[in-house]
Amino acid sequence: MFQNTMPRYEILSGDAIETLDRGWKRIVSEIGIRYLLPEAIELLRDAGQDVTDDVVKLDPEFVLEQVAKAPATFDWRGRNPDRTVQIGGDSMVFASVYGAPFVREGDVRRDAKLADFHNFVKLSHSFAELDSAGGVVCEPEDAPLDSRHLDMIYAHLTLSDKPFMGSVISATRAEDTLLMCDIVFGGREEVRRAPCTVSLVNCNSPLCWDDRMLESMLHYARENQAVIITPFLLMGAMSPVAIPATLAQQIAEAFAGIVLTQLVRPGAPVIFGSFLSNNDMQSGSPAFGTPESAIGLLATGQIARHYGLPFRTGGGLCTSPVCDAQAAYESLMTLMPTFLTGTNFVLHAAGWLEGALVAGYEKFIVDLELLRMLRETFTPLEINEETMAFADHEEVGQGPGANFFASPYTLDHFRDCFYRPLLSTTENFSRFSRHGKDATARATDIWHAQLEAYEPPPLEDGMRQELDEFVARRRTELGD
Amino acid sequence: MFQNTMPRYEILSGDAIETLDRGWKRIVSEIGIRYLLPEAIELLRDAGQDVTDDVVKLDPEFVLEQVAKAPATFDWRGRNPDRTVQIGGDSMVFASVYGAPFVREGDVRRDAKLADFHNFVKLSHSFAELDSAGGVVCEPEDAPLDSRHLDMIYAHLTLSDKPFMGSVISATRAEDTLLMCDIVFGGREEVRRAPCTVSLVNCNSPLCWDDRMLESMLHYARENQAVIITPFLLMGAMSPVAIPATLAQQIAEAFAGIVLTQLVRPGAPVIFGSFLSNNDMQSGSPAFGTPESAIGLLATGQIARHYGLPFRTGGGLCTSPVCDAQAAYESLMTLMPTFLTGTNFVLHAAGWLEGALVAGYEKFIVDLELLRMLRETFTPLEINEETMAFADHEEVGQGPGANFFASPYTLDHFRDCFYRPLLSTTENFSRFSRHGKDATARATDIWHAQLEAYEPPPLEDGMRQELDEFVARRRTELGD
Repeated sequence: MFQNTMPRYEILSGDAIETLDRGWKRIVSEIGIRYLLPEAIELLRDAGQDVTDDVVKLDPEFVLEQVAKAPATFDWRGRNPDRTVQIGGDSMVFASVYGAPFVREGDVRRDAKLADFHNFVKLSHSFAELDSAGGVVCEPEDAPLDSRHLDMIYAHLTLSDKPFMGSVISATRAEDTLLMCDIVFGGREEVRRAPCTVSLVNCNSPLCWDDRMLESMLHYARENQAVIITPFLLMGAMSPVAIPATLAQQIAEAFAGIVLTQLVRPGAPVIFGSFLSNNDMQSGSPAFGTPESAIGLLATGQIARHYGLPFRTGGGLCTSPVCDAQAAYESLMTLMPTFLTGTNFVLHAAGWLEGALVAGYEKFIVDLELLRMLRETFTPLEINEETMAFADHEEVGQGPGANFFASPYTLDHFRDCFYRPLLSTTENFSRFSRHGKDATARATDIWHAQLEAYEPPPLEDGMRQELDEFVARRRTELGD
Repeated sequence: MFQNTMPRYEILSGDAIETLDRGWKRIVSEIGIRYLLPEAIELLRDAGQDVTDDVVKLDPEFVLEQVAKAPATFDWRGRNPDRTVQIGGDSMVFASVYGAPFVREGDVRRDAKLADFHNFVKLSHSFAELDSAGGVVCEPEDAPLDSRHLDMIYAHLTLSDKPFMGSVISATRAEDTLLMCDIVFGGREEVRRAPCTVSLVNCNSPLCWDDRMLESMLHYARENQAVIITPFLLMGAMSPVAIPATLAQQIAEAFAGIVLTQLVRPGAPVIFGSFLSNNDMQSGSPAFGTPESAIGLLATGQIARHYGLPFRTGGGLCTSPVCDAQAAYESLMTLMPTFLTGTNFVLHAAGWLEGALVAGYEKFIVDLELLRMLRETFTPLEINEETMAFADHEEVGQGPGANFFASPYTLDHFRDCFYRPLLSTTENFSRFSRHGKDATARATDIWHAQLEAYEPPPLEDGMRQELDEFVARRRTELGD
């Protein structure tokens, strides 16, 4: 897994952090948070918080006490232990796009099918740059609605052995997730020992946590499974059109969720989530890969570190509906700050297109190239006698015409001295013109070839049979 | 002009800088620099340096003494004083692509013509994000070779009133540049008062300065005109395949040029230049927008600051021959570090395609969008009571369904709260599908419209006539 030991790019002064700190405290204590799950209200009332109907005004010191109980780092386990990754610290974990109802391959945009879901899990499994295929990579509209979560988890557990994300639609679906984990990880005690799932819960921003998200969150927390507690903030819609106000709201909402996890299980693993961008105030549409999202992302990393929490931000986010220049620059506008701030959990790291309405096959490959380049860029440079390669200078001397094509250091290192692209071409124009394929067209070739080369990871026959039986039984119970 | 007051992203430790410092000193003192201009050799011999034929071994302390004479900041004057920009400090100056023999518009790649040169100067003049149209934006192959520099300078001085870059092909062409400046700036004394030109001189790397570049450089320096002293380093060809070795070589070569400028005019304005990328060791072709170039760029900024010199790095560099996703991500892979390190002079800021073989019209627009986004991103966030917008939270309260579309802060700021794109679309899929134009296709529309809207800046009739007469006379003298 990737460790980012480069410096963090920090843009907030100490004063700024103090102002933001006062900001979220005022929001939680003076305005309060709405919780649409009675159990959550009871937990907070029992903890001495000020409850009026379904709105709770939280004491900031109480909030900080609870937040301090969350671990700074924890493991996210794959069913193959070699795939287990650390969340927090210098670790950066990368997972695929999440939740897209459509897919795009080449010029075709269409409803996502279960076959697409399988494809993206296979692709995510195949590329070392991704630590996880994620969760709801795309919404397989041809899978029966009430038992679709079973199909998705089954795909994650059989087509990959990397860690995966659990269902958050309800507590029973969260429990289905864990029952399937029981099968492959060796029973509930073992599942509880350390997180087998990281699951994504979104705030119903502004300042509202809904019942289904909360019940999933509480169930996972009780079972020592990790949750990413994510305010969903498109500035101008769910938050003010000011980044500072939005950052304060983001802390308020995330902390308002984290508090509950720590009440039901002190020390439950959580990730400070961020999904922060802005509306285009002219079109009213959400915009991704914007300067505002880059700034928010850098600030969020610094805030999460300030409170000692692992955090999620970023990904290959873009607004563009097609895999073009705009999609590429918007995604890198998000991914570069993601690395600059050392994001611990990078959801939507590959395949996001059209504001996440679309999981794009070609975009998936473009994003992988970006991840590969950034991993190389954010690897510390070793500056020492060897890399000064003085003998090369002695041998080559001065131009004109002198070159380093066959100097000693070159001969020793030419194979691995530079980044080798997955997608980018360095062909000269004459060679390029023979095929004339731009990056998106070449990406099509790459994902096709990668799917053809896919090999499923081993899975014990007994486990597979248990999973099959479980899915069949639960599907019947769920009426699908 | 743009002031980058954000933090610098620094990747070199103090130890690393010391190692690099020892590295360049060893190169200049033990291996030495070849100078192909006898005058340069004489200057260095007179200054007590160790000369053997055309190779000079330089005393590092002498080099540092000379480098220390170069100013940390200076002005680059436009013929319109309002266009004058500062070089150095927090200032970032942006100029167009330089030196492309071909142009690309849409799917057509062809030889560059004088009409293209004019177009790019007009476009550069029109967009506020560019401080200069640069110099040899493209090589106008239909302009007579020996007097082509006159056509180019004439275009810069008549189609724009922004600062421009002088000819460096020889001392006489440098003088032609200044004679034309005399006309529009008010005579040689006035030209000498502060730089009217910044000119690009490249090292014939490794460790060689050729005669034509040197004579141009010395002429400009004597006349108090600025030069960008730029090692030309494609690792694996002109430097070792190690970034640290290349950084040491870069310092050695740049300093070896800067020394001469300070010998002929102590305090002559110079820019520490960097053009550092790598060869693809499989294809042998140069590669731009790579992780190596990003790392080199960040390190170069830190090195130049260490020695107190204004510096040039970066731009919208890419390898891709077409204006596709690769071109976009490669360019941002270069431009984002350019901002992170606060580059003072950004050549190739717009229009670079195919390793600078091509000036791309559409790419020009893509790069402008990148520059606009980055300028916004690298503007400090104001975090204060006002931007905490607490009254908005009080008014909107909690979801579900609550929003900030018409909250007080939104109503006050919706017009200018977020970045407004030049090129990017936020159209939803249905709207987008009505035209189906990707970013590159939309860029075509934008540059066409901008050229149509172009209005030339005012120029006194008398000056224009003098310029016309000068060009006509010199063209005859040059035999074209």
